[in-house]
Order: sequence, then C-alpha cells, then structure tokens
Amino acid sequence: MHSEFADDSLSLHTDLYQINMAQTYWEDNIHNKKAVFEVFFRKLPFGNGYGIFAGLERVIEYIENFRFTESDLKYLKNELNYDDGFLDYLKNISFSGTIKSMEEGELVFGNEPIMRVEAPLAEAQIIETAILNIINYQTLIATKATRIKEVIGDGTAMEFGSRRAHEMDAAIWGTRAAYIGGFDATSNVRAGKKFGIPVAGTHAHSFVQAYRDEYTAFMKYAQTHKDCVFLVDTYDTLKSGVPNAIKVAREMKGQINFKGIRLDSGDLAYLSKEARKMLDDAGFQEAKIIASNDLDEYTIMNLKAQGAKIDIWGIGTKLITAYEQAALGAVYKLVSIEDADGKMTDTIKISGNPEKVSTPGLKRVYRIINRDNHKSEGDYIALDHENPQAEPKLKMFHPVHTFISKFVTDFDARELHKEIFREGKLTYEVPSLKEMQSLAKENLKVLWDEYRRSLNPEEYPVDLSQECWDNKMKMISQVKQNIK
Amino acid sequence: MHSEFADDSLSLHTDLYQINMAQTYWEDNIHNKKAVFEVFFRKLPFGNGYGIFAGLERVIEYIENFRFTESDLKYLKNELNYDDGFLDYLKNISFSGTIKSMEEGELVFGNEPIMRVEAPLAEAQIIETAILNIINYQTLIATKATRIKEVIGDGTAMEFGSRRAHEMDAAIWGTRAAYIGGFDATSNVRAGKKFGIPVAGTHAHSFVQAYRDEYTAFMKYAQTHKDCVFLVDTYDTLKSGVPNAIKVAREMKGQINFKGIRLDSGDLAYLSKEARKMLDDAGFQEAKIIASNDLDEYTIMNLKAQGAKIDIWGIGTKLITAYEQAALGAVYKLVSIEDADGKMTDTIKISGNPEKVSTPGLKRVYRIINRDNHKSEGDYIALDHENPQAEPKLKMFHPVHTFISKFVTDFDARELHKEIFREGKLTYEVPSLKEMQSLAKENLKVLWDEYRRSLNPEEYPVDLSQECWDNKMKMISQVKQNIK
Repeated sequence: MHSEFADDSLSLHTDLYQINMAQTYWEDNIHNKKAVFEVFFRKLPFGNGYGIFAGLERVIEYIENFRFTESDLKYLKNELNYDDGFLDYLKNISFSGTIKSMEEGELVFGNEPIMRVEAPLAEAQIIETAILNIINYQTLIATKATRIKEVIGDGTAMEFGSRRAHEMDAAIWGTRAAYIGGFDATSNVRAGKKFGIPVAGTHAHSFVQAYRDEYTAFMKYAQTHKDCVFLVDTYDTLKSGVPNAIKVAREMKGQINFKGIRLDSGDLAYLSKEARKMLDDAGFQEAKIIASNDLDEYTIMNLKAQGAKIDIWGIGTKLITAYEQAALGAVYKLVSIEDADGKMTDTIKISGNPEKVSTPGLKRVYRIINRDNHKSEGDYIALDHENPQAEPKLKMFHPVHTFISKFVTDFDARELHKEIFREGKLTYEVPSLKEMQSLAKENLKVLWDEYRRSLNPEEYPVDLSQECWDNKMKMISQVKQNIK
Repeated sequence: MHSEFADDSLSLHTDLYQINMAQTYWEDNIHNKKAVFEVFFRKLPFGNGYGIFAGLERVIEYIENFRFTESDLKYLKNELNYDDGFLDYLKNISFSGTIKSMEEGELVFGNEPIMRVEAPLAEAQIIETAILNIINYQTLIATKATRIKEVIGDGTAMEFGSRRAHEMDAAIWGTRAAYIGGFDATSNVRAGKKFGIPVAGTHAHSFVQAYRDEYTAFMKYAQTHKDCVFLVDTYDTLKSGVPNAIKVAREMKGQINFKGIRLDSGDLAYLSKEARKMLDDAGFQEAKIIASNDLDEYTIMNLKAQGAKIDIWGIGTKLITAYEQAALGAVYKLVSIEDADGKMTDTIKISGNPEKVSTPGLKRVYRIINRDNHKSEGDYIALDHENPQAEPKLKMFHPVHTFISKFVTDFDARELHKEIFREGKLTYEVPSLKEMQSLAKENLKVLWDEYRRSLNPEEYPVDLSQECWDNKMKMISQVKQNIK
C-alpha cells in the first residue's frame, strides 16, 4: 500500500470521534473517571428466538494488545495534528479496567447486557468500535449457524463460504463462530491452522476440466488420495458423474475409502434421491451424499421435506455473510459514571424511538431456571447490588407491557456474567472452541421448543427487576423536567 | 489463540480442495502445465446497471507475498498428513504466472472476464479462493458506494460502518472500496492511516451523558477542538440539542469553526428542516447538517424528495455490509489448458443451469465507444487473437437472444485488461486511491443515463464475438456427444 505508516496495531481500529472525545476528557482531566459501558443489541437477528454469543476470545486478544505504536502516534501527529501532550498520554495507555461478560456459546437475547466494561472513561471509549465490530459479526454468524444446524439435525454441517466472506478476517472468524454454533468443519485451511477446526474438501470442477474426462479425473484423484469424494456435476450428474464415480470406486476398491459424492448444482432433491439409488445398487450404501449450492436453513428444510438423500451439507454464502440479515446491531452505552466527589452516578440516553432509551445503572443478568423442569423462565436484569436468588417469590414482568407478569418460586438464578479482566489483568481462562460448542448445545436445552423453532418463535422474557425499572423511570422524568 | 502454528501468512487462506488438487497435479507431474482461469460474476448486485471493480491492489499484495511459511508447512504435515515430497514442492513455490486485469474503478458487467490468470496449473488453483474473496467484497462495496453517491449528488458521503462491518478487514477494505466508489471520508482511523483516506468524526451520545448536560458537553468540546460538529439528539433535538449548539457557537464565536450539527435519530426530514431554520435564524447559514441512522440510497432519495436539509450523509451498516445483497458471486473458471503436446486447448463446464455454462478460450474484453457521442455501445468479448478495432463494421449480438443484434461502425474498441504480472514479476504501477476514484467517476460518463439509474436500469450489452460464440457452441456439442 502507499502508506508511510506501518499497519502494525489494531489500536487505531476505532472511529475518529472516540479519539476526539478522549482528547477532551484528557484536557479536561476527567479521562480517568471510572465509567461503565454495557454492550447489548435490541433485536434478535433472523426473527430467531435466541442468539448465540461469540467473539469474546477475539475481544480478549484485542484488549491484551491494545497499545498505540510509534506508527499510530506518528500518524495522529503528522496527519491529524493532535497535541504532543495528548499523544504522550495515548503512548502510555493500555487497558486498565474490569470487564465482565457472558461466555462464548451462551444464549443471549435482546436488551440484556452481554458485556460490561468498567474502566477509565477515555480507555473505555476508545475500545468501543473494535469490541462492537468483533461481537456483532461473530454473534451474528454463531446464531445463523445454530439456526442452520438445528434444521440439519444429525447431518453434518460444513462451512464453505471463504470466497464470499467479507474479506479475509470474516472468512476465518466467521467459520470460528459457525463452529461454536454447531458446525462440524470448514473448507478454510487457515482457519484449521489457526483454530484447530477440522478442514474438509476434495476437488473442484476445474479438476475434471483439467483432465478433460471425469473417469480420468476421478481415477487420478483416487491414485493420489486415500479418502475420496468425487464432485459429479461437471458435465451431467446422473449420466456421467455418478456412473464414473461408481466405476472408479469399484476399480479402486480396497485401495481407497470411497467416502461419497458431491452435488453442487441442479435439483438437489431429485438428484440426491437418484444418486442414492445408484450408489446403493452398486453396493456403496456407506457412501455419503454431500450437497452445496446456496443452501440455508430454508432450502435445507424444504429439501428434507422432499425426502432428499443428503448426509452432509456444505453451506457458504448464506452463512458466512448472514445474507438474510447481514448485520447485528449491538451498541455500547454509558450506564454509569464517577461524579466529581468520586461517587458513581447513573446516566441515561433518551430518544424519540422508545426502544432506544437506555437502561441506566450497573446491572447483572440472571437466567431464572425452574428447578422442577430445568427449563428457563426467562432472563432477569437486576441492579448490581440486588440478589434475586434471595427472593422467595420473584416477580417477573414485561419491561414494556408491565401488566404482563408472573411470580416464580422454586428457581435457580444463574448469573450469566463471568469476570474476564480485573483492573487490566486477564483473570478468565478461555475454554477450548470445542467446549464453547458444547456449551452452546447444552444451553439450548434450557429453552422450551417454542423459543427454538426457526419460524415465529415465542418471545423469550427478558425482564427488569422492579428496582431497575423504577430507576429508569425516575431518570426519564428527571431528564424531561430539565427540558423546557 | 490456542494454536501452535503462527498465523504468519495468507497462503493457507484457501479451500482445502485447492491443496488436494495441487497434490494430484504434482504427483501426476502436470502441476506446471500452463492453465488459464478467468474471474467473472454472472449477475450485477442490487439490480444495478453496472459494477465498479475494486480489489486489485489487495490481490497484488497477496500474490507478492504468496509463499508457504514454516508454520504453514508444519500444519500441513502434522495435522493434515501431506507427504514430504509435495510439501517440498509447496515450500519452493511462489507465483510465477501472468495476470491481466481490469483496473480498479473500471466499470464491470456480468459475464465478462474481470481478471485472467495464466499460470502453472497448481499455482493458479491454490490462489483462487483468496482472489475471489478479495474481489467479491471490494467490488460489491464499491458498486454500492457508487449507487449511494449517485443519489447524494453534490453532497458529502462519509463511511461510518466500522462497528457493523464483518470483522476488521471488512471495515478497512470496505471503506477503501467505498472511497473508490466516490465516498469522501471515513470514520475509521486505521483506514485513514493505512490508505490516506480523509477521516471524520466529532463526539458520541456518551460524551453528552458523561457531562450530564448538553451545554457543558458542547462547551468542553469547543474548548478543546478548533473544528466543531455537535451531536444534538441525546435528549431532545429541537428543544435542547440545537439551541445548546447555537448557544455554544455564539459564545465561542471567533475561537472555533462551528462546522455544524449531527442528527442521528428521529424524523430526519422534519428535524433537518427545523434545525436549518434555527441555524439560519441564528446567523449560522454556513453550518452544515450531517445525518446518519441506517441510511442507504433509498432513504436518501426519499429524504431529498421531502426537501430534507442535509448536507453531509453518514452511511454505516447498509454500505459496509451491502445489507441489501450481502454477496457478489464472482467465480474463477478454467477456460484453457496446455495439452500433452504443449498446445493450449480450450475447456468448458456444462451445467443444468444454462447461465452456468462457461465460455471457453483465452479472451479479451473491449469497450466499444461510439466516436460521435463518446458513449459506450456495449462490451465486446473476443478470443485472444481477434482484433475488433480492425473490423469496419462490428456485429454485436446478444449472447442468449442471438437475433437481437446491431452493427457498429465508427467506434473505438478500448481494451479493458492491463498486464499486472508477467511471469511472476509485477509490471503494473498501482495508481493512487484518488486516481482510482477519478477513474470510476470518468468511466460512468460513457454510460447513457438509462444504464445509470438505480431502479430498473436498461441491460447493458455484453456480447461475444461470432468466433467466441461459435467456439462455445462447438464445445457444448462435443461434450454432449461424449455423454450417452
């Protein structure tokens, strides 16, 4: 590139206004005031009944490396003309705050804090953009992956989207999120190397074209690979592809593992049923049928309803770009800040859109598990000092339609936030990716089926404690009074 | 991360099947056969009448750094069990082929080769995934940016999408593509540092919340920054935000440049008109109004139709994720390969879907410019040895509805491919980003307005030469004859 500045850190991977605000805070000497920001999104993507949180490990990596490099400072000075004093401050900062967060693979819903950042005001501000960028994308993809995997059921789900992902990072972090959401493998070799995700893939159409005829191509592949899946739709699936695959599998019997065939175009329901018969008749009942071609949970459900004989599903574009809804709108809101006298005071943001009014105060999130049936009654957001577990009878009420309420008695209030950083030090041990995947799978079991279906699920309760709700109402009326 | 393998190269940023094919080619000793692949997409995104090509510089960077590192080879050996012989081959390769390509900012249409890779078969195969990943995303975003900029017209377009982009790479490469497509600035500081794109931004809602009242917040900002834009919708835009902005602008007159205000919620048409009146009445006719909040070309067109007084448009999610259609489907197809006797022979891929049948042979793309009016008559794809400029009367016919045809006489046939690499050496001088932006702007002028409108544009002709078309038909019937 044409830059004189080495792209050697992600610390400037932020919006300019974060730096400009930090400058004011520093000049006004309030940069080290303790501030609390919360990350949450308002609406679940894809009309889904739940989200799967992902991205924490990448956030940790970013925070641990958060330091302005020489080239960052040089750019800010030479091109954007920041003062030396402020740049000296930036030069010496690293993240010194405390972060609590849900774990990756945790179920997450609208309007509940996924993550809570308590840190010196300026530091907390600068890291906003990267945190949102990371969490928005991985949570979106993990959620989409789970939706797809729920429809696939016992079949195998493979991520094939690298060529359509939004640049390189999305390809690898997206496939990582898909793995947390229940996917089994990826085609991206770098993701395999970086994350230990199983990688899969055999050959493309160009391979058949390079050898001209299918028989030769399959035979050459079989002579150089033990495990063989043949792509059968380069010329004609049923007249040429499948017969040639069977021919080579027979001739190479004992020398290769004929794992199956792959269909990548045409009517996958019809072709898979016909191909299944041909494989079975030839004695290859164990050979699998892999299908790909713009698949998502809707096409998969339809193919299954039509009795398609597909064992392994390759999902590309529709997963890795979350094509149906390509963005999650997580935001990062200031909920409390240190006053001049050192006391924490809550803050609120009002908006013409009622759902955009923020909920003030330091909060914790609990999942209220019914001890009888081990299903969740909903999530419960309380102020930091409250203890819902101590309530003999917990009142849960809808935060908008407040007259909709219920009392829960025999419950476990499972707190969802873990401590990740304490005063700048990492205190959390990051689980393996496999453990995150298991956590997501286990978590889904606490949901009634009504919340899990992909179309029109019931709305899962995310309720505020009475004290949290009262606090919000009080602050709204205070702000209103101040505006003539 | 938990990997023992350093993520120190992008060479494994490929699909596993590329490596598996390369292995067969190497064992079969055909890995160095010369092969020609073409990159093209079939359908323009967003129903647009043209695309804007972007991504070449990133492809060049990738190709120049294409080398398998020790950690790549160790992963392939230890985890995927490739043979030492093949790994030795990989260890020693770099890209040794020739690449021709359109330039960034060039107009591009469906079914025409954007890029042509002529290289040893195995090399050309391995680089496919990364090339498509890069070109698909940047071309998608550059095209979306141009659509938006066309509607904005003389107004200023700013890219604000970092928090919603698909991970970090997308945020910076996407904003680069948006700049090529005509955007003026970005909020992402790292993109400013890396590409020299102008950066913009002032303060967020949290800044007002941190200071409690708007007047104090704006005043503190004004005391620490020369150029001031105040975000006026934290509490109440017209009753609190705009009056406070005006108050501070008056009190700080002479000390700051009061650049304007920013609206980020509510009815932008109504609020901008009211705010404009208030600013004008206060004597701040020069102050600009910046608007943001899920904008795209459709909302902008509607706001303008309603007489909204917006000067600067901040576009986030809908641009950086290409939300409306989050993927471009460029593919990479083998069109010709060296035979056993060293002669190049064309190849074809047949498909049940007629539009997926590939067009065989080495080809060049020409833009046929009418010498009278300097407008384009369409693009013309010819075989490598043809010379359309030498034709006194060029026949252009629709490649599907072949009876739709025209003759063009007084024309310039402008070849669209430039040489980028020759036998592994970079021979192309990459223009500046600004030059790419100008190129895109200039290029649009050759299009009749009918192709430029954002809704239901006319279909721009992309035609095959007679010889190219005949060659395709001949190969289709050859393949059909081989299938019983």
